[in-house]
Amino acid sequence: MEKIKGLINAPFTPFTAEGEVNLAPIPAYAALLARNGLKGVFINGSSGEGYLLTEEERMRLAEAWMQAVPEGFKVIVHVGSTCVKSSRRLAAHAREIGAWGIGAMATPFPRIGRVEELVKYCEEIASGAPNLPFYYYHIPAFNNAYLSMYDFLQAVDGRIPQFAGIKYTFESLYEYNRCRRYRNGKYDMLHGQDETILPCLAMGGAQGGIGGTTNYNGRVLTGIIEAWEAGDLDKARELQEFAQDVIDVICHFRGNIVGGKRIMKLIGLDLGPNRTPFRNMTDEEEARMKQELEAIHFFERCNR
Amino acid sequence: MEKIKGLINAPFTPFTAEGEVNLAPIPAYAALLARNGLKGVFINGSSGEGYLLTEEERMRLAEAWMQAVPEGFKVIVHVGSTCVKSSRRLAAHAREIGAWGIGAMATPFPRIGRVEELVKYCEEIASGAPNLPFYYYHIPAFNNAYLSMYDFLQAVDGRIPQFAGIKYTFESLYEYNRCRRYRNGKYDMLHGQDETILPCLAMGGAQGGIGGTTNYNGRVLTGIIEAWEAGDLDKARELQEFAQDVIDVICHFRGNIVGGKRIMKLIGLDLGPNRTPFRNMTDEEEARMKQELEAIHFFERCNR
Amino acid sequence: MEKIKGLINAPFTPFTAEGEVNLAPIPAYAALLARNGLKGVFINGSSGEGYLLTEEERMRLAEAWMQAVPEGFKVIVHVGSTCVKSSRRLAAHAREIGAWGIGAMATPFPRIGRVEELVKYCEEIASGAPNLPFYYYHIPAFNNAYLSMYDFLQAVDGRIPQFAGIKYTFESLYEYNRCRRYRNGKYDMLHGQDETILPCLAMGGAQGGIGGTTNYNGRVLTGIIEAWEAGDLDKARELQEFAQDVIDVICHFRGNIVGGKRIMKLIGLDLGPNRTPFRNMTDEEEARMKQELEAIHFFERCNR
Amino acid sequence: MEKIKGLINAPFTPFTAEGEVNLAPIPAYAALLARNGLKGVFINGSSGEGYLLTEEERMRLAEAWMQAVPEGFKVIVHVGSTCVKSSRRLAAHAREIGAWGIGAMATPFPRIGRVEELVKYCEEIASGAPNLPFYYYHIPAFNNAYLSMYDFLQAVDGRIPQFAGIKYTFESLYEYNRCRRYRNGKYDMLHGQDETILPCLAMGGAQGGIGGTTNYNGRVLTGIIEAWEAGDLDKARELQEFAQDVIDVICHFRGNIVGGKRIMKLIGLDLGPNRTPFRNMTDEEEARMKQELEAIHFFERCNR
Repeated sequence: MEKIKGLINAPFTPFTAEGEVNLAPIPAYAALLARNGLKGVFINGSSGEGYLLTEEERMRLAEAWMQAVPEGFKVIVHVGSTCVKSSRRLAAHAREIGAWGIGAMATPFPRIGRVEELVKYCEEIASGAPNLPFYYYHIPAFNNAYLSMYDFLQAVDGRIPQFAGIKYTFESLYEYNRCRRYRNGKYDMLHGQDETILPCLAMGGAQGGIGGTTNYNGRVLTGIIEAWEAGDLDKARELQEFAQDVIDVICHFRGNIVGGKRIMKLIGLDLGPNRTPFRNMTDEEEARMKQELEAIHFFERCNR
Repeated sequence: MEKIKGLINAPFTPFTAEGEVNLAPIPAYAALLARNGLKGVFINGSSGEGYLLTEEERMRLAEAWMQAVPEGFKVIVHVGSTCVKSSRRLAAHAREIGAWGIGAMATPFPRIGRVEELVKYCEEIASGAPNLPFYYYHIPAFNNAYLSMYDFLQAVDGRIPQFAGIKYTFESLYEYNRCRRYRNGKYDMLHGQDETILPCLAMGGAQGGIGGTTNYNGRVLTGIIEAWEAGDLDKARELQEFAQDVIDVICHFRGNIVGGKRIMKLIGLDLGPNRTPFRNMTDEEEARMKQELEAIHFFERCNR
Repeated sequence: MEKIKGLINAPFTPFTAEGEVNLAPIPAYAALLARNGLKGVFINGSSGEGYLLTEEERMRLAEAWMQAVPEGFKVIVHVGSTCVKSSRRLAAHAREIGAWGIGAMATPFPRIGRVEELVKYCEEIASGAPNLPFYYYHIPAFNNAYLSMYDFLQAVDGRIPQFAGIKYTFESLYEYNRCRRYRNGKYDMLHGQDETILPCLAMGGAQGGIGGTTNYNGRVLTGIIEAWEAGDLDKARELQEFAQDVIDVICHFRGNIVGGKRIMKLIGLDLGPNRTPFRNMTDEEEARMKQELEAIHFFERCNR
Repeated sequence: MEKIKGLINAPFTPFTAEGEVNLAPIPAYAALLARNGLKGVFINGSSGEGYLLTEEERMRLAEAWMQAVPEGFKVIVHVGSTCVKSSRRLAAHAREIGAWGIGAMATPFPRIGRVEELVKYCEEIASGAPNLPFYYYHIPAFNNAYLSMYDFLQAVDGRIPQFAGIKYTFESLYEYNRCRRYRNGKYDMLHGQDETILPCLAMGGAQGGIGGTTNYNGRVLTGIIEAWEAGDLDKARELQEFAQDVIDVICHFRGNIVGGKRIMKLIGLDLGPNRTPFRNMTDEEEARMKQELEAIHFFERCNR
């Protein structure tokens, strides 16, 4: 199965001031991402507040992205939800509209505590879109599904033919690397934490990844991979350190979903508020974040 | 605002063998519950796998229950979901069909970590059904929303006029009692753990409650309240101990949602399987559970 | 084996201003407790900062309490520590000086994750004091030993002959009651949360307990049991509610170990500071706590 | 302040079959470590079951190591305990016997929940050994002290003059790197997870580290650093992957403290059992572990 090379971006979902999904900015959004070196989008995931959208909204968003992206730009649709029946329908829809692939994180309710449950969950969803590459999105901080991904790969192997790999959003580079080496690299291990692309490259990983801060810092993040491949370690380190400094700022403002989304406004692409129960940033917070970003010269380097 | 007296049951959702919602058993189900002393139903909650249903399925279930229940039997519709927009629509629907009230647990995603976020979440949902009593369903083991309910009552007071109270499914009888005493009993504190009705009565609480094991053990559980009110402490203790023994059995079989639902089949009302990722009991497990229930003479006392 | 009737108090450890153990107040302390209806002391436990004391200090404290208590007043010595060898020595010492019994909570390091490990831990400690009643102190919030106490009783039964029972400091009155009923009440289930004595009595439990707020609120807490036994439910409720209000105050000041210890100063028995890393209350905090206690008329009812 | 270059080993504590500390193997143990490229030892830490030793045993061990190590081989004494007074004494003792430095992890009881508490804890301990380099040992999986190490560095800076740095045993290479860059590398960030030395080197870190699997795999682990410095990325990757494979094996046998200690026996240096509540491996488990190690050709590469 084809492996993803380079960075895929997890877009935010644009909302109107009233909190309704706003499809209008998507063409400009897609162009911005392509311009900055991204290779595709992973939509309706955590950055996209996918769980906070209705099933119809998720379908309309998928269609809008399919229409907006340039040729060869991959659209992967996150279809995970608490309702496996709905997820299967979203998977089928993604296939119908020609998406490149699908993905799903573990449902947060009920908490999945065993590998076998997770395999069953993925299997039922994937069955909605036969043959379409399926990625498991591992982000246990969001759903408490602290399961061994190595055991999961073993369990899924031979059972879900379209299983493509894992979007690995967890701190253990040890586990990441062991999964990457599983059966000589059988599965695609997409790196999922923008703060550690360089260390992952050093182990031989991070050939492909899905980023959240790539929304506004894509050139820097793709630059890490380029510098590494060009043998320029000093540059790779400098770019990775800058990426960490940016992440440090958003951590002061409730992370990427809240703080990162607001950065989009600061760089000229206002995507509106977050849905409840996310707490939107106040104007005072926005001003403070802007100052912190200026202090690290973010606006001189970021995407436009 | 009216306070609930007696026990409300949280029904399981009937499924066909293929995993589709099955409305057929609901009239018989409602009759069984009414026959055993229950005062109403709290549908589409955790026992009802509400989070695992599509929005349409939840609406059809609500309609079916409305049609099936006898006069005066309360229907409270759980409308919580990860999508506040969907929850608001479900609230509006509940009101349209004449439900007695609505309820919502905290979304498990994103995890709600602050009282203010929870108030906002409840407020937006409740706004879909103006004037309809709204109950917050506190069950932190399921969504990690380990917030102070006393602080929550203070925050909600004066802000959500239709706020009726809390379905309290947590072990702290201390916090329960403090909430119950808030402003001389301003809010309705529904007891939510069938294993501790008697101790709660002793403190002056548990006048009303929502049960999960009331599905198959309702006469025993309502019997605890009757015995207490009649001053028969010995009987109340014996019934509570029996209720605990039953709960102990289901804890050996993945709890009420899985094990309890299967008991319904054993007492003659087959409600079908659970949805993924719940693991359905095997036949061997069912046989073992039956034995454990026989050992405590359950089938001689349970609901029919 | 004899079962404890009434309430045992878990004393704070007196320190000098310099942070050294201060044995001087112990005789007056013991007299205060006896005067207020307590039946004994459980020393060097969590309220007593036992884990924060050296092995010698723990021995000197045990000796001082043995000398200070009136005839018939039980001294139970908590001997748990991270070092089972040290704990066994403390157990032997407790026996030598004539203590009534010993107890140990699970070590917080390494975290005990299996019943078998806990049995072994208790067995080795108890072996230091043959025949002396041994109580397991269940307080998982402090050591993450979230194990089934029912399973533990089954595992310990027939293996540690001197095993007397459990000091149960956890919210599950369901589990408490099941343990209490184990083999018709074979083991002594000491109630360990002052906020829920009444509900526990209703189930038939709480004949004996170990309290932390009994240090300054012993008459009220013993009064709950007396009122219940006298059939005066209204009085029992009022006293339990007052006890809950007091506990609510200390929860605003880092709980009983910090806030409760400072109350002793406010009622005339200054026991000095807490050891690092506990953060001692500031004067401002003390003044605020005093106000909160006055607001509930604490000083008119408390122990003197 | 001098920064550590290369790898320090965290030794296991030898016990007799009866469970008493056994000093006899220490000279041979020290020679083995020096022979395999280690630069020092971090004794009485988690691998050394320091928390499970009495204060005297810890002192005797420190003395034995001081006598056994070759010139220039660093001895760092872990002095953390639940009792800050005891830890201060251990710190003073370490200084008296000429140890190179000291370290302490956060006490697991009471759980340290604020940076300020941790600074106070470290400050009091360090005051027992003025001027001796003090390392904070960050291993939150063992004590739940999930605090920001960056905030901790800021809080400690200017307050504990002898503060040398952190032994960082946590998965976040992002936080590790930010701490490493704090004030242009003011503090010594010792890498503490043998499974991720190479990725850490890539970021510019891991110049020094403290290992646990270095006990039996030191040549491979020091080889990673050598290969990286020699520009041989392929070799560094191969060695890191082998180190991960070894760690994977011990993870099947309760980790390094239990499984790793037993490996020492398999390579000819029997260090005896673990203390309760650690569960010692059975003979059957040992045989199984041996097979797993043979399958990865461990015995052809390991330390002798």
